[in-house]
Amino acid sequence: MINVAIIGAGRIGKVHAESIYTRVKSAKVVAIADPFADDATKLWAQGLGIERCEKDYTVLLEDKSIDAVLICSSTDTHSAISIEAAKAGKHVFCEKPIDHDIEKIKQVQKAVAEAGIKFQVGFNRRFDHNFMAARKAVQEGKIGKLNLLKITSRDPAPPPVEYIKVSGGLFLDMTIHDFDMVRYISCDEVEEVYAYGANLVDSAIGKAGDIDTAIVSLRLSSGALAVIDNCRRAAYGYDQRLEAFGSLGQAAVGNDTAANLEIASEQGIVSQKPLYFFLERYMEAYAREIQTFIASLVDNAPIQATLKDGLMATAIGLAAKESLAKGAPVKIKEILQRYNL
Amino acid sequence: MINVAIIGAGRIGKVHAESIYTRVKSAKVVAIADPFADDATKLWAQGLGIERCEKDYTVLLEDKSIDAVLICSSTDTHSAISIEAAKAGKHVFCEKPIDHDIEKIKQVQKAVAEAGIKFQVGFNRRFDHNFMAARKAVQEGKIGKLNLLKITSRDPAPPPVEYIKVSGGLFLDMTIHDFDMVRYISCDEVEEVYAYGANLVDSAIGKAGDIDTAIVSLRLSSGALAVIDNCRRAAYGYDQRLEAFGSLGQAAVGNDTAANLEIASEQGIVSQKPLYFFLERYMEAYAREIQTFIASLVDNAPIQATLKDGLMATAIGLAAKESLAKGAPVKIKEILQRYNL
Amino acid sequence: MINVAIIGAGRIGKVHAESIYTRVKSAKVVAIADPFADDATKLWAQGLGIERCEKDYTVLLEDKSIDAVLICSSTDTHSAISIEAAKAGKHVFCEKPIDHDIEKIKQVQKAVAEAGIKFQVGFNRRFDHNFMAARKAVQEGKIGKLNLLKITSRDPAPPPVEYIKVSGGLFLDMTIHDFDMVRYISCDEVEEVYAYGANLVDSAIGKAGDIDTAIVSLRLSSGALAVIDNCRRAAYGYDQRLEAFGSLGQAAVGNDTAANLEIASEQGIVSQKPLYFFLERYMEAYAREIQTFIASLVDNAPIQATLKDGLMATAIGLAAKESLAKGAPVKIKEILQRYNL
Amino acid sequence: MINVAIIGAGRIGKVHAESIYTRVKSAKVVAIADPFADDATKLWAQGLGIERCEKDYTVLLEDKSIDAVLICSSTDTHSAISIEAAKAGKHVFCEKPIDHDIEKIKQVQKAVAEAGIKFQVGFNRRFDHNFMAARKAVQEGKIGKLNLLKITSRDPAPPPVEYIKVSGGLFLDMTIHDFDMVRYISCDEVEEVYAYGANLVDSAIGKAGDIDTAIVSLRLSSGALAVIDNCRRAAYGYDQRLEAFGSLGQAAVGNDTAANLEIASEQGIVSQKPLYFFLERYMEAYAREIQTFIASLVDNAPIQATLKDGLMATAIGLAAKESLAKGAPVKIKEILQRYNL
Repeated sequence: MINVAIIGAGRIGKVHAESIYTRVKSAKVVAIADPFADDATKLWAQGLGIERCEKDYTVLLEDKSIDAVLICSSTDTHSAISIEAAKAGKHVFCEKPIDHDIEKIKQVQKAVAEAGIKFQVGFNRRFDHNFMAARKAVQEGKIGKLNLLKITSRDPAPPPVEYIKVSGGLFLDMTIHDFDMVRYISCDEVEEVYAYGANLVDSAIGKAGDIDTAIVSLRLSSGALAVIDNCRRAAYGYDQRLEAFGSLGQAAVGNDTAANLEIASEQGIVSQKPLYFFLERYMEAYAREIQTFIASLVDNAPIQATLKDGLMATAIGLAAKESLAKGAPVKIKEILQRYNL
Repeated sequence: MINVAIIGAGRIGKVHAESIYTRVKSAKVVAIADPFADDATKLWAQGLGIERCEKDYTVLLEDKSIDAVLICSSTDTHSAISIEAAKAGKHVFCEKPIDHDIEKIKQVQKAVAEAGIKFQVGFNRRFDHNFMAARKAVQEGKIGKLNLLKITSRDPAPPPVEYIKVSGGLFLDMTIHDFDMVRYISCDEVEEVYAYGANLVDSAIGKAGDIDTAIVSLRLSSGALAVIDNCRRAAYGYDQRLEAFGSLGQAAVGNDTAANLEIASEQGIVSQKPLYFFLERYMEAYAREIQTFIASLVDNAPIQATLKDGLMATAIGLAAKESLAKGAPVKIKEILQRYNL
Repeated sequence: MINVAIIGAGRIGKVHAESIYTRVKSAKVVAIADPFADDATKLWAQGLGIERCEKDYTVLLEDKSIDAVLICSSTDTHSAISIEAAKAGKHVFCEKPIDHDIEKIKQVQKAVAEAGIKFQVGFNRRFDHNFMAARKAVQEGKIGKLNLLKITSRDPAPPPVEYIKVSGGLFLDMTIHDFDMVRYISCDEVEEVYAYGANLVDSAIGKAGDIDTAIVSLRLSSGALAVIDNCRRAAYGYDQRLEAFGSLGQAAVGNDTAANLEIASEQGIVSQKPLYFFLERYMEAYAREIQTFIASLVDNAPIQATLKDGLMATAIGLAAKESLAKGAPVKIKEILQRYNL
Repeated sequence: MINVAIIGAGRIGKVHAESIYTRVKSAKVVAIADPFADDATKLWAQGLGIERCEKDYTVLLEDKSIDAVLICSSTDTHSAISIEAAKAGKHVFCEKPIDHDIEKIKQVQKAVAEAGIKFQVGFNRRFDHNFMAARKAVQEGKIGKLNLLKITSRDPAPPPVEYIKVSGGLFLDMTIHDFDMVRYISCDEVEEVYAYGANLVDSAIGKAGDIDTAIVSLRLSSGALAVIDNCRRAAYGYDQRLEAFGSLGQAAVGNDTAANLEIASEQGIVSQKPLYFFLERYMEAYAREIQTFIASLVDNAPIQATLKDGLMATAIGLAAKESLAKGAPVKIKEILQRYNL
C-alpha cells in the first residue's frame, strides 16, 4: 500500500484524491496540504477518508510514512516543491508544467537523479483512451511511416485574464499539452517550430501581452511535418482531435460526447457537442495517469510521462514563443544549447 | 449510511459490490451470501471492504442492521427471495426477470405492498446515458408525437445451450430488456404484439426449443407502432441501438465504442466496433442504477424501474411467445386478464 | 440507335426524356404522347429535341420507326397500354406498379411473351448507387448468410388525399418499392407477411380508408426475417435506409445529402438533412434505369427489373393489405394460387 | 446560343465538351483544336456532335461565329493563347494556372481589359457543392467571425516525375487550388505565408527538385490564420476537406464517397474511401463551372473565378516557394510589388 500526500487542494488535487479513493486499490491518500485549506477542504477530504489536512506541506515531506506526493499547487511552486520532495525521498507526481524555466527543470532532474525517486509529469492526455489508441495504431504500423500530424486543441472559454498574465503565455500554458502530444503520437522529436499567433477572442488577452489563437508548424527529426491549431474559445466546446497521416493511411481521433444521440428534424441532423472541458473529457485519463503512477511505484514499471517529456515540451513552447516574437522558425536545439542540453 | 447485503456473488453481484464501493458514498456492502462462496469470493469481497461472507442468505435477512438486499442469485430464486426479503423488511433490488410466472410476480407485489418496502428491478438500460438522453428528448417533445419506435438488440455470441434451456426462451431472457425499453422510451403501454422467430445462428438452440433471431412488432396504446429485432450473434459485437420517430423528427441512439478512432487506408475508413457486451457497454448504467436505488432509499425519490415495469415486460414476453407459437397477434390485455390484472 | 416514344408527359415522363437526351447515347426520344399535352409540353419537348407531340398514343404504336415505349401515364392505364404496345411489337419500359390486379399483370405477361419483346418495370431503386452497393456486398458474401433485413422508407410529405384514394393504398403505392427492395437485396422470395398499419399523420388519409404509417414484417424462403417501416411524413425529409444483417456482419445504407457539410455551434453538431424527395435522391437512379433498359435492347442483356419482379411486389402488397385487414399473417403463396400462379 | 471552341483535346477538354453537350443548353461546342488530334479525338468529338476538329487553334480564333474558347492546352501555352483569344474578341475560359509568371498574367489582364471580354479561370473547386455550401455558411455568418481555416488536400498518387519537372512545383501545381480556396472560403486576402515542405513520398520527386508533402501557414488581412496540408499520395484516395472555425462555431467539409454504405464485421465498421481523384470528386463541379461561365456570357452575371483570383493564387504560390527556399515567412505584398501590383 502506497501512502500518498497531495500538495495543493484545488480542483485538480481533489480530482486525484477521488481517483485514488475510488480506483486505485494499492494507494491511499493519507494527507493533504494547502495554505488555503479550510473547513470545506476538510469536509471533502474526510469524505474521501483523508484525516490529515495541513497548511504547510513541509511537515508532510518530513513524515517517513508518506511514500509519494502529488504536486498540485500553483505552477510557480512546482519545481521548488519537486526538488524538496525528491530530497526528502518522496516519489513525485507533478502537474504540468514543471517550470517555465528550463534551468529549474534541470535542477529538478538533478535532485530526482540523486534521490533515485520516480517522477511523473501530469501530461494527462497520454492516458486518454482515444490518444492511446491512436499512438498504438501508429506504433503498430497501421499508417506506415508518419508524414503529417495535425492536432486541433481548442478550449470552450478562456481563463480569467489574471490567470493568463501569470500563465507563461498560450504556448507554455495550453499548447504545451499539444507539443507533448506531437512527441507522444509521433514517437519522434521536434526539430524546429514556426508559430503564428493572433488575438481574436478577447482583446483583454492581447492587452495582457498574450495571444488566444495560434497555428504552430513543426518539423520532426524524421522529416515528418506537424501542425497544431489552438484557440482559447470554441463555441461548441472543448475540441480535442488529431490526425496522424502516413504512407499507408491515417489515424484520426474525434471528440467524445456525453451521449451517442442524434436528433433529426426540419433543422437538420443534430449530434451532440464535445464534452465541455478537460474535467469532463479527461476524467478517465486523470484516473489512469494516477493508476499508472502508482503501478510504476509498486512494480517498478517505466514512467509514461517523464521529466524529460516535461522538459522537451517546455523547450518547444519556448521555441514557439521565440518564433512568434521573431517571425522566424526556431530550432529546438538552439533552445536546449542555451542550457547545455 | 445504508447497509446493503448482496445475495448471489456471481458476476453481476460483484459488479454491484464494486459500484457501491467506488461510487456510492451513502451505502456500504456489509455482507454477501452465496451457497457457492469460496475463498476466491471472500478475497474479492475483502478487497471491497466486505468482511461478512455467508453461504445462507436467510441469516442476513434476520440481521436488523441490514437495510437493503441486492438479489443477484439465479433467476428461479428471484421471486421467492424477494418475498422473504420484503417480509423481513428489507428494501429490495432484484435482477431481471423477477419471474417468468406472472402469478409469482403478483405474490412479490403483495409482499412488497404489505411490507411497505422499496423494490427496484434490474432494468439497467433505463440508466444508460444514451437511452436516458433519448427518453429525455422524447419527453421534451423534440420528436413531437411518437409514430414509430425501432429497437435493435443483438448479442455478440449466444449463451451456452444449457443456459438457454432454462432461460425461459429468447423473449423472456433477452427481448425482455427491449420490451422494457419500448415502454421506457415511449412512455406508453404495449397493446398487442406479433412475433416472428427463427433459428439461424446455431441449430442446437433450435433443438433446445428456442429461437435465436426475431422480429417482434408491437402496437402501443397511443396507436404508435414499434419493432424490435434480435439476434443472439452479431459478428461485430453487441448492437444496442434505437430510433424514436415522431411527428417532428427522430431521436437515434448509436453504439458506443472503446475509442473514437478512425483508420483510413486502402481498405476503407474503419471505425471501431461497438463495446463487446453488456459489462462493457452498460458498466456506467450498472453503477447508476445502484446509485439511484440507494438515493431512493435515502431521500424517498420514486423508483425508476418498478415492480410493475418488471411485470409488464414479462407479460409482453409471454404474449410474444404465444404469438410465435400461434402465428397470430396477441393482446397484452389477454395475458393480464388470465391473472386478474 | 433506338427510337423511343414516351407515353405520358408528366413529371416522370419528362425526367426520362431528359435522361435520354443527356445521358443515353444510343437512344433518341422521337415522340411523346399525352392527352393533356399543351404548349408548355411542346416547349420542353422541343428543348430536348423531341419534335413530335401527340394527344393519342395509339398513333405512336402504329409507327414502325419507333422501337420502344416508356409508359409514364397514370397507373390505371399501365397494363392496358403495356399489352397494346407489346402487341404492336414495341419494347416496353413501364412505370410501377404495372397493375394492382394480378390478373391484369398476367395478361401483360402473356402479351409480352407472345410478342417476344423486352419489358422493364420502373423499380428505380434497383439502380440506386447505394442499394446496388449493398446488394453487391450481400452477393459477394460480405455479410455471410442473411439473417435480418431492415428497410426504412419514409416520405417527406403525403400526397394529396385525392391521389391516395386511387393509389391502391400505402402498401401498393409506397411500400411496393420496399417489397421489391426486400427481394432485390436478399436475392430471396418472401413467404409470408404480417402488417401493422396506423393513421397518425393526417386524419384525412384515415377517412379515405388508408393508413399512413406501417410496420410490415416478412418471412423469407431461406428463413431470414425482414421488416419495413413506412411513414408518409418525415419532418427531416426522404428517409431511405436499409440494413442487411447476416452471419458475418451487416451492410447498412444511409441517406444521401446535398452537401457533406457539418456546422458545429453552441446548438450542437448539425449535418445536412437527406435529399428532399425521390426526384432529388433517385435522379441518378432514374438515368441508370433507362440506360440499362436501352442497353438491354442494344446488346440483349438481361432486364434488371422484370415483369415478374413487378408481379411479386404486387402480390406481397396484396398480402400485406389482407394481413392488415384480417389481423393475421398472410402467405404469398395463397395470393398467387388465387391466380393459378 | 453560345458557340464554343475547345483548344486542347486532352482529358479535361473532353470533360468540358461532355458537360456542355449534356448539361449546358445555351451553348454548343462547334470545334476543337489540338495539334495531336487524331481519329480517336474525332470519334469522341463526333459523338458529342462536334463536327470540326483542327490541328491549329488560330483558325478558330479567326472564325467570327465562335463566341468563346476554353483553353485546355498545356500550362505553358495558357497565357499566350489567352492573349490571342482576347485580341480576337473571344470570351475565355482558361484552365489553371494562367501562368507561373505574374508578368504574363498581367499581360493577359491587359489584353482582356482592352478587348472587354469575359475571362474565367478553371478553379473548379469554387463550384463544388461542398465548398459552395461551406462558403455560404461562412457568408451567412453561421460561424461568426473567421478565426482559423484549415484545408487538407492530398492526392491519391503523384503524377509522373516528368510532369513534376515542368509543373512549377507543388505550390504552383497542386497547392494553388488550396490557396484559392483560402481566399474563396475566407472572402479575405492572404498577407503572409510560411511554408514547410518535405520529400517523403518518392525520392525521385526530391531529385527533381520538388517536395511532395507540405504544411503551409498563412496570415490573412483580418488577422485570421489558415493552414494547408498537402501530400502527393494518400493511400485511401483523394482527401479534400476543410474546416472554417470562427467565433460562433465551425463549418467542416468532409469527403464524398461513391456510396453511403457501411459494412460492420469482426474487422470493424468500414465505410467507403473518398472518391478516387479529381475527375470523380469534381465531375459535378466541372459541369457547374462551365454552366456558370456560359451563364455569365448569356446574362452578363459576374464571373465567379476571375483573372485576379488566378493572379492572387499564383502570387501566394510564389510566396510559399520563396518561404520554403529562405526558411522565412514571405509577405504577398512583397511578391506583388515586384510586378508593380
